[in-house]
Amino acid sequence: MVNSEVYLTDVTGRDGFQMEKSWIETDDKLLILKGIIDAGIKRIEATSFVSPKAIPQLKDAKDIIKDLKNEELTLVALVPNMKGAEYALESGVDEINVVLSISETHNKKNVNHTVSESLEQVYSIRKLINSTKTTLNISLGTTFGCPFEGKYNVSKVSSVIEQLLENGIDKITLADTTGMANPNKVSYYMKTLRQKYPRAQFSLHLHNTRGMGLVNLLAGYNAGVRHFDASLGGIGGCPFAPGATGNVCLEDIVHMFMEMGVPLEHPINLLKLINTSNDMEKILGYKLPGQVMKAGSAGEVIKN
Amino acid sequence: MVNSEVYLTDVTGRDGFQMEKSWIETDDKLLILKGIIDAGIKRIEATSFVSPKAIPQLKDAKDIIKDLKNEELTLVALVPNMKGAEYALESGVDEINVVLSISETHNKKNVNHTVSESLEQVYSIRKLINSTKTTLNISLGTTFGCPFEGKYNVSKVSSVIEQLLENGIDKITLADTTGMANPNKVSYYMKTLRQKYPRAQFSLHLHNTRGMGLVNLLAGYNAGVRHFDASLGGIGGCPFAPGATGNVCLEDIVHMFMEMGVPLEHPINLLKLINTSNDMEKILGYKLPGQVMKAGSAGEVIKN
Repeated sequence: MVNSEVYLTDVTGRDGFQMEKSWIETDDKLLILKGIIDAGIKRIEATSFVSPKAIPQLKDAKDIIKDLKNEELTLVALVPNMKGAEYALESGVDEINVVLSISETHNKKNVNHTVSESLEQVYSIRKLINSTKTTLNISLGTTFGCPFEGKYNVSKVSSVIEQLLENGIDKITLADTTGMANPNKVSYYMKTLRQKYPRAQFSLHLHNTRGMGLVNLLAGYNAGVRHFDASLGGIGGCPFAPGATGNVCLEDIVHMFMEMGVPLEHPINLLKLINTSNDMEKILGYKLPGQVMKAGSAGEVIKN
Repeated sequence: MVNSEVYLTDVTGRDGFQMEKSWIETDDKLLILKGIIDAGIKRIEATSFVSPKAIPQLKDAKDIIKDLKNEELTLVALVPNMKGAEYALESGVDEINVVLSISETHNKKNVNHTVSESLEQVYSIRKLINSTKTTLNISLGTTFGCPFEGKYNVSKVSSVIEQLLENGIDKITLADTTGMANPNKVSYYMKTLRQKYPRAQFSLHLHNTRGMGLVNLLAGYNAGVRHFDASLGGIGGCPFAPGATGNVCLEDIVHMFMEMGVPLEHPINLLKLINTSNDMEKILGYKLPGQVMKAGSAGEVIKN
């Protein structure tokens, strides 16, 4: 039976900030992330332990984790390799999210490894954290297609998932890195994968590159998925994928599920999210793609 | 049985242009609309016969219709009242689309009449065009809620639909003027109304005000609706509804249905639509909300 509650992971601190070219002060990052947490989001992918040469914006990863560390939160950090995992573990994160891509071309560009090499690193990281309280999640990039390799069948994804499951890893995020999914594809993928691997806990990480972020998310929900990534204001994207644009927008998703009467894991204060999104817009200095931050909730009535 | 093909009406010339504050030259309007037509869209709501004092941008309605008139097209013009209908008929449009709102408050602000008065005008317009080849469509604004009156039940909408059907009018567009719908609401409304009034041909006119344009459209499609309005680049909105933002984006919808394998009534050249949307962005002078115009089709592969 499908659990009816929706679980949201905010990825503003990682997938959002990594795309920002101008340096965001650590204090501003913390202000935004604390606003999100204060609104009721309990699972935060706050940063990435990655080479500061590759992504200078996230060079304050250690400080971010140190400041946010709190027993009521699940603090996640993305890592591309063993070195990142070691730093992440040292910083005291609750969960390490290792990224690799289904597409060999994108994996090479993103983390400079073959898919097999990345999988070997994943198993080493699993061993590293085995004796700790830190949990492991694997994010599979370009799951629904790759800008360099085009579209491929779900079987290409299954073969990686099977290797992960055989190695005791069952928390898996499927990422539509450059918005190549559509509702039928998401529905087909998720029904197939959930039936084939009932033990796995699948999350969806969707981008709005071709306008289908929310419609793909709902297709996933209707196919039984309950875990979704999102970023405040819909910011973000992959620096190593041409044409990549923002994530699905956190407050727009919260608003949609509230309007639909779908329960969320934790009560969320939508107004606080909207206010934080507007604060972030000022900090970043450009108009964000989020819609509810501009229009407000559909429940508001204008007094004449 | 539900017809599987999707029928699209482009409303760029009416709902799109009416929101533009700076004057768009008639030749530029025609360039954009002809680009849309050339891409394969056969049904165009090209303008509105409305007081030039209320919406100066559409004062060239007659010239637009005269220039576009073509036997292969269905040219639609929106009208708010009898006077507009007379002008529209005189100009030779194929269809007159009379707008009225479900909400008394919005109807008053939009067309300065009570809903009853608007309905009386509709019946007079029906008599006026009865002996002509021109067809009639009624657009019901604020169908899914009103920014002034809040949310209401589908029965409020049913009562207007029943009056229209009793008067021999069965082509009805349900408009979510300020984006107050959600997928569950659209699904419930459309299943209820299609079952209750099998003789009516319902269209959906959706705005992306709260980010749910496409997800609401797909909910409508899944509930059996096959007729949808859209605007190039996702421009538009209602000048008399606070917070109203763009329509669902024509090229993003075409792309979504193509990727899903859903057939469209006519073959559409997506690249031509994208090029026209980019041309329009230059003419309007600001960044449009459309996504596929920026990212291209999911079918494109980047050569290394």
